[in-house]
Amino acid sequence: MDISVVENVLKLNDEIAVQNRERFKQAGVFVVDLMGAPGCGKTSLIEKTIERLSSYISIGVIAGDLATQRDARRMARFTDHVVQVNTGKTCHLEANHVQRAIQNMDLGMLDLLFIENVGNLICPVGFDLGQNVKVGMFNVAGGDDKAAKHPYIVCECDLLVLNQIDLLSHVLFDLKLFRDDVRILKPDARLMELSSTSGAGMDEWIDWLLVQAPAIRQSAHTATI
Amino acid sequence: MDISVVENVLKLNDEIAVQNRERFKQAGVFVVDLMGAPGCGKTSLIEKTIERLSSYISIGVIAGDLATQRDARRMARFTDHVVQVNTGKTCHLEANHVQRAIQNMDLGMLDLLFIENVGNLICPVGFDLGQNVKVGMFNVAGGDDKAAKHPYIVCECDLLVLNQIDLLSHVLFDLKLFRDDVRILKPDARLMELSSTSGAGMDEWIDWLLVQAPAIRQSAHTATI
Repeated sequence: MDISVVENVLKLNDEIAVQNRERFKQAGVFVVDLMGAPGCGKTSLIEKTIERLSSYISIGVIAGDLATQRDARRMARFTDHVVQVNTGKTCHLEANHVQRAIQNMDLGMLDLLFIENVGNLICPVGFDLGQNVKVGMFNVAGGDDKAAKHPYIVCECDLLVLNQIDLLSHVLFDLKLFRDDVRILKPDARLMELSSTSGAGMDEWIDWLLVQAPAIRQSAHTATI
Repeated sequence: MDISVVENVLKLNDEIAVQNRERFKQAGVFVVDLMGAPGCGKTSLIEKTIERLSSYISIGVIAGDLATQRDARRMARFTDHVVQVNTGKTCHLEANHVQRAIQNMDLGMLDLLFIENVGNLICPVGFDLGQNVKVGMFNVAGGDDKAAKHPYIVCECDLLVLNQIDLLSHVLFDLKLFRDDVRILKPDARLMELSSTSGAGMDEWIDWLLVQAPAIRQSAHTATI
């Protein structure tokens, strides 16, 4: 009985995710589900990305948190297209949260939409939101063992980001161990090492977004970045 | 239908937690459920606590992670009483995990048992494990907004720990904001600010453990700490 109910929840989620994906496709918006532990720097990375790209493309954000509108307020300094989702006690976003959020957004205005998931390395991975790509984020201050301890996010994501590489000289973090753990779990994993604070590695991240998203590329290439 | 199944899961968890609590009581062991985000320093705090107290009392650890035995291996350098629980994709420990773990421990040998929960600020809070106290841990590198964003753990815990205060001069962290957020959510919250790395504030933590745990106090006071 338990199992069938769990399956129904996931089945319903997947049905709504399909609807979301269709809406995103029709609107021509490229959607990134950004997942990572609390404090790994998801909001900062999105802020810096908008700063870098906002002259060329239109970027929206759905920010997921249990409570508060702090992330939405932070990002509203950089874009008008921000919706905060407060999940209460739910530790991840589900497709229906996103479905409701985009009712308050003019998707046709957007080239790129970040869904900043609830800070959690585990459950968000299991829920399709209708995104184009899933990005899993780790951070140097979080410790070099976090990839090995969280194989599901490593294996399921299209891209992995290691943030805070500016802290490598200040924190005990075995970069080779971290990289090896990622390779063992997923030999073809794409791992990007950057610092949203210092800007190191950010060019690669921006380039990746531009390559992944035809709509972005199209808009962006009309200007010169 | 969904709701009744969820209630059954929690009811079953609570029944097993009652059994765990009875076993802990009979064995005379004081049990701390330590919860916090990945990388906030749970394992380090336990290591340093064992270093400080191991001459006087016997301390065991149940370490919860999705995968790997890395935490257990780290802590096995300090105590023989370590059991690793790998939860697979489950984002929190449940009472039945603890029940199985203690089948492999000689509880009668222990004065203090740490249950290091899966790194997650959300779901672990909802599951009684049979512990005596719940401790919720934050860290400076995780950002000053994490208490406000996670009201459930703030309100449910017997003690809150802010770790990494040695980083306050290196990281943008508004300590007054963090403290105010905690007070607003829980006016009588006990908040302990410490660094397991520098040792600052550790005396207060050790004293708190000794006051909370009559069994520990009894054993410890036979020696002079």
